[in-house]
Amino acid sequence: MKDRIQEESRTGSGMDKADRKTDERFMREAIKQARKAYALDETPIGCVIVYEGKIIGRGYNRRNTDKSPLAHAEITAIKKASRKIGDWRLEDCTLYVTLEPCQMCSGAIIQARIPRVVVGCMNPKAGCAGSVLNLLQVERFNHQAELTTGVLEEECSGMMKQFFKELRERKKREKESGAAQEYRQLYRPVKPGVRKRKAGYPAEISQCQGESRDHGDQSIEDLSGTGRKM
Amino acid sequence: MKDRIQEESRTGSGMDKADRKTDERFMREAIKQARKAYALDETPIGCVIVYEGKIIGRGYNRRNTDKSPLAHAEITAIKKASRKIGDWRLEDCTLYVTLEPCQMCSGAIIQARIPRVVVGCMNPKAGCAGSVLNLLQVERFNHQAELTTGVLEEECSGMMKQFFKELRERKKREKESGAAQEYRQLYRPVKPGVRKRKAGYPAEISQCQGESRDHGDQSIEDLSGTGRKM
Repeated sequence: MKDRIQEESRTGSGMDKADRKTDERFMREAIKQARKAYALDETPIGCVIVYEGKIIGRGYNRRNTDKSPLAHAEITAIKKASRKIGDWRLEDCTLYVTLEPCQMCSGAIIQARIPRVVVGCMNPKAGCAGSVLNLLQVERFNHQAELTTGVLEEECSGMMKQFFKELRERKKREKESGAAQEYRQLYRPVKPGVRKRKAGYPAEISQCQGESRDHGDQSIEDLSGTGRKM
Repeated sequence: MKDRIQEESRTGSGMDKADRKTDERFMREAIKQARKAYALDETPIGCVIVYEGKIIGRGYNRRNTDKSPLAHAEITAIKKASRKIGDWRLEDCTLYVTLEPCQMCSGAIIQARIPRVVVGCMNPKAGCAGSVLNLLQVERFNHQAELTTGVLEEECSGMMKQFFKELRERKKREKESGAAQEYRQLYRPVKPGVRKRKAGYPAEISQCQGESRDHGDQSIEDLSGTGRKM
């Protein structure tokens, strides 16, 4: 099974240069989609589906925006591609996605009988194209997909890291701002220059800030769950 | 992991009678949905999602009708339930489905964080709630669902068997009718009472009919792939 996974590196692989260039071209289109998610404060994941050299379906993560567990990049792209082709079978198509698909999206790829999947970066704690499971290549299913990973990997993972770094910083600011506001509400001035602590206030402000800093220290390398678990 | 699967039989189980009656009541609603698929000549699979004792999402298989690999009963029900709840998290919901979910639908259940799944009959060759895989209870995912199987099992599997029996009979009739038509076209009367075989006709009509009969003999017990593989 493993020999069906083509692990592409920047230094070269079994693929010829033309194929790699084509894959990179379409992965760039998937990254463009991911940036649309980024702009909505959604985990930046993008996808395109290609048929006969043309993109027939695009999608990006809109889970929080649409309030739907189905609003993953791959599902949207599959929906659009099926509409375009006029068939539930997306045979002869290639799916490009910036992050390793989750269990639902890997399942949808098999259901749609997509023969080839190209992945940007992996999702070690939740991915189902080789990380937690490899649902794309289960022999007992009636379809398996060829898999190429690591195409524009640095760009894809860099975008994710940047997103989560900004998210943590924003959350930290919000927490600090919230704590400051809470502080102003709780410690009302009784006399000018004297502040009285309101009874029942559960913890020190400084402690909240400490927690926030601890959270900020979390490694930005850890993309676990990322787009799919937030 | 196995002890989390409550295997319910008609003779009784760990569940009390009230719970079983509730499950049967909602499975009957899922069967109603499946019958809508049946009426469209789609593999009869139906699903309902229940929240606080009320159905908040219904769905039935429309894969061929909608020409979409996503048009499975569970996906439609999840889409509707999320819209109703106004959240991608369907926590505190129970999903009832007449046939064991495929890899995509099991994945969607986990993505939606549905805590409990009730299944009518199993799908030994393609099901992903215990048959080929059990995607509902993978420890490494951030969510697992409780699973109850075999609720109104005979009704659910009986409906599937009936559907495939009728499908085979219809296909057989169509094949025979097509063969008869082909026969009429190929063996044109040259003189009254004399039929001439057209040059290049590849095989005997009787052989085609033989193949059709062979197909007709296939066991109706075999639901392999059923709704998901046709």
